[in-house]
Amino acid sequence: MNVKDTLLAAKEASTRCATASEELRNNALSAMADALRDEVDRILEANKADMADARKAGMKDSLLDRLMLDGNRVFDIADALEELSDLPDPLGQVQDERTIAGGVQMQRISTPMGVVAMVYEARPNVTADAAGICVKSGNACVLRGGSAAHRSNLAIAGVLHEAAVRAGMPQNCILAVEDAERSATDELLRARGLVDLLIPRGGAGLISHCVEYATVPVIETGVGNCHLYVHDPADVAMATEIAVNAKCQRPGVCNAIETLLVDRSIARKALSSILPALFRNGVQYFHTDPISSEIASDLQIPAIVSTEEDWAREYLELEIAVKCVEGLDEAIAHVNTFGTKHSESIVTDDAQAAERFLSEVDAAAVYWNASTRFTDGGQFGLGAEIGISTQKLHARGPFALEALCSYKYVLRGSGQVRA
Amino acid sequence: MNVKDTLLAAKEASTRCATASEELRNNALSAMADALRDEVDRILEANKADMADARKAGMKDSLLDRLMLDGNRVFDIADALEELSDLPDPLGQVQDERTIAGGVQMQRISTPMGVVAMVYEARPNVTADAAGICVKSGNACVLRGGSAAHRSNLAIAGVLHEAAVRAGMPQNCILAVEDAERSATDELLRARGLVDLLIPRGGAGLISHCVEYATVPVIETGVGNCHLYVHDPADVAMATEIAVNAKCQRPGVCNAIETLLVDRSIARKALSSILPALFRNGVQYFHTDPISSEIASDLQIPAIVSTEEDWAREYLELEIAVKCVEGLDEAIAHVNTFGTKHSESIVTDDAQAAERFLSEVDAAAVYWNASTRFTDGGQFGLGAEIGISTQKLHARGPFALEALCSYKYVLRGSGQVRA
Repeated sequence: MNVKDTLLAAKEASTRCATASEELRNNALSAMADALRDEVDRILEANKADMADARKAGMKDSLLDRLMLDGNRVFDIADALEELSDLPDPLGQVQDERTIAGGVQMQRISTPMGVVAMVYEARPNVTADAAGICVKSGNACVLRGGSAAHRSNLAIAGVLHEAAVRAGMPQNCILAVEDAERSATDELLRARGLVDLLIPRGGAGLISHCVEYATVPVIETGVGNCHLYVHDPADVAMATEIAVNAKCQRPGVCNAIETLLVDRSIARKALSSILPALFRNGVQYFHTDPISSEIASDLQIPAIVSTEEDWAREYLELEIAVKCVEGLDEAIAHVNTFGTKHSESIVTDDAQAAERFLSEVDAAAVYWNASTRFTDGGQFGLGAEIGISTQKLHARGPFALEALCSYKYVLRGSGQVRA
Repeated sequence: MNVKDTLLAAKEASTRCATASEELRNNALSAMADALRDEVDRILEANKADMADARKAGMKDSLLDRLMLDGNRVFDIADALEELSDLPDPLGQVQDERTIAGGVQMQRISTPMGVVAMVYEARPNVTADAAGICVKSGNACVLRGGSAAHRSNLAIAGVLHEAAVRAGMPQNCILAVEDAERSATDELLRARGLVDLLIPRGGAGLISHCVEYATVPVIETGVGNCHLYVHDPADVAMATEIAVNAKCQRPGVCNAIETLLVDRSIARKALSSILPALFRNGVQYFHTDPISSEIASDLQIPAIVSTEEDWAREYLELEIAVKCVEGLDEAIAHVNTFGTKHSESIVTDDAQAAERFLSEVDAAAVYWNASTRFTDGGQFGLGAEIGISTQKLHARGPFALEALCSYKYVLRGSGQVRA
C-alpha cells in the first residue's frame, strides 16, 4: 500500500478501534506478546538482513547495537506488551459531569485520538512499543521507522497486526508504512484530516524536520540541553555525586546534563571536587569559561575555551560545558536562554533559592538536589512511556497512555433547544 | 516594534507573568476593566477611524457590525474582564503528587504556557477577551487582530497594557502587533521558541492558513459542518423544534447545523414537518438529495438538487443540505466523512441507537435529543471561552482558561541519583 491508502485504511480502522472493549484490547496485547515469542525466527531473519546491509553501508557500532535484535531482546519486547495489558484503561474516564441549560446531562469522557502516526529512527523495538500503546489506548497506528530497520519493522508490525486481528481487533489497526523513501515521512506529516497526532522520536534533525514541516498535530520530543546548577551554599559532595550521575551514567540520553553552572563564590571549592570526579568517570572534553578554565588548569584537567555556541550544544557524549555565574538570577537566565525546556537541576542548601529556581525555570522537569536522570516515564511511575515532550501543548515531560487520548463532550437531552 | 522585537519583549515578560500572584493578576483584571471604562473615548475614536475606512472600502453591513464599538459594547467588554477576576486560579494546581525512587518528592503542577499569540479577524472585543484570559492564566500575550480593526485593537491593547502595568504586572505582558501587513501574521506562525501556543479565530481561510503554515503549536478552531440526524423512531415534533433552533437561531455561527440527515423510513413524515418549519423560519435554500427533493416538491418547498460538494459545505447562512439515509450506519459514516468534528446531534426514541451515535461519531460534542447550539463555553459552564477546538490534541470543543495552561514536574530531593 502507498502512504495515502495506508492512512485511509488506518482511519477506517480507527473508528472500530475506538469502540473495542477494554477486554478485547487487553486480550489483543497478550496475543501480540505471544505472537512475538512464537515468531521470533521470522523477526530475527528480517533483522539479520537489515544488519547485513547496515554493516555494508558502514554503520557505526553504537547504531548497529541499536538496530540489532536477538532472542532476548524480542522476549523483552513481548514482556513489555504483556505489562501494558495490566495498566488501567485510559478510555471512558468521566473527567467532568454536570447538568446544563434546561436539564441536558453533560459528560466529558476520555476517547482515543484516532490515527496516531509514529516517526522514529534506528530502534526496531519502538515498532512494538508504539503498536502496543496504541492498541491499549484504542488508536489505530501508522508506524514509520528508520530505513535501516525497514525489514525488521515490517516483520514486527506484520506479526503484531496478524495477532491483534486474530484476537478480534479491526483489520488495519496496526500498519507500517511500506514505502522506504523519505518522501513517505513527509506525506505523513502533511496528511491533515487523516493523522490526529504525530509523534517523532529520534535525533534533533528528525524532530525539527517533523515540527517544521508538519501540518498535522505534533508532540515535539526529546532534545535535552539540560543543566546542573551548583548554588552557593551547596553540599559539594552531593553536587559531585549528582554531576557524575547526570553526566556520566548514560551520556547519550536526553536527560543527561550538558552544562554545569557554578556560583562564582563557590566555584573553586565546587569545581575542585566535581571536575576531577567527572574526569575520572570518563569525561574527555571540558568546554570552560575563563574562570573555570583557570581552575581546571590548576587541577591539571585539560580544558577547551568555550564559545557561545557551546552553551547551546547537546553533546550526548562524555563532554561538558562549564560556566561560572554571579548567582541565582544569572543561572536562571542562562538556563531559560539556552535550555531546551527538558530537565534542569539546582543543588543548594538554601530552600528559598531552590523554590525560585523551581518556579522560574521554564522546563518540563525541575529538580532540587536530585539528578536530572530521573526524567523518565518509568521513574515517574507513568507506566509505558512514549517519549519526553519539550513543548507545553497537550503533554509535557515524560508522557504515556494519557497523552494518546483526547476527550469528547457527550450530551443527553429530552428535546432542549438553546434560548 | 517589529514582530521579532514584540515577541522577544513578550517572552521576557512571560517569565515574570508566570510568577505573578493570583491577587496581582486579579487586581490587574479589575484595573483593566476600569481603564476601558475611563478611556472609552480614546477607544471609540480609534474605532471611528477604522469604521470610516471600512465603509470607504465597501465592507458589508454584517462585518461593519462586527467591527463597530459603542459605549455599551465597551462597557460589556469591561464587565467580562471583571468576571474573569472572580474565576478560580488555573495556576499552581497540584495535578499529581507521589514519592519516586529513593524518596524524591514529585509534584505535577499547572503552569502558564508562556507566550500565547492570538490571530483573529474583525471583532475588536477579542483583543480584550484574549488579553484578559492571558493575564488570568499568567501568560504574556501577543495579539494580532484583523487589519480593518487595527487602530481599535491598538487602542484597546494600549489601554489594557497601561492599566495592567500600573497594577503591577510586568512591562510588555500585553502586546499588539503594530505592523498591519499580512506578513506579520506569518512571522508569528513561524516563531518557534518564542510562541508557546498560537490560537487562530476566524473564518475557514484564516484557520487553515494558520494550521498549514505554522511551525509553532496551534489549536485549530471553529469550522463547523454540523449535522442533525433524525433516526426512526423519533419524536418528529422534537426533531422539528431542534432543527429550527440549530439552523435558524443564529445561522452564522459554527455550532449551527448545515446538513439534515433523515432515515428514509421516516423521511416523509419527518420532512413534512421539518422543511416547512425551516422555510417559515427563513431558510431560503434547500440542497436536497433525490428522495427529499421529491418530498420538498410535494410540500411546495423550493429545493435545489444537491451535489457531493454540498455535504461538505459550511453554509453559515439560511441554507441547508438534506439527505435521506438507510439508517444509523449510513448516518454515522456520513457524519464521520463530511463533518468537521465539531457538534453532531441525533434525535431518536431508541436509546441503543443513540448510544451508538454518541460513541461512534467522532466529534467534540455529540448530542442526543438536544440542539447543537449548546456547544459553547458559557453554556458548558467553563467560564470565559477562548474558542472551540476541532482538533483532538490538548483541547477539544469549547476551551477556556485550562487550555492556556501547561504543567511542569517539580522534584525535591536530598541528593538522590539514578541507580
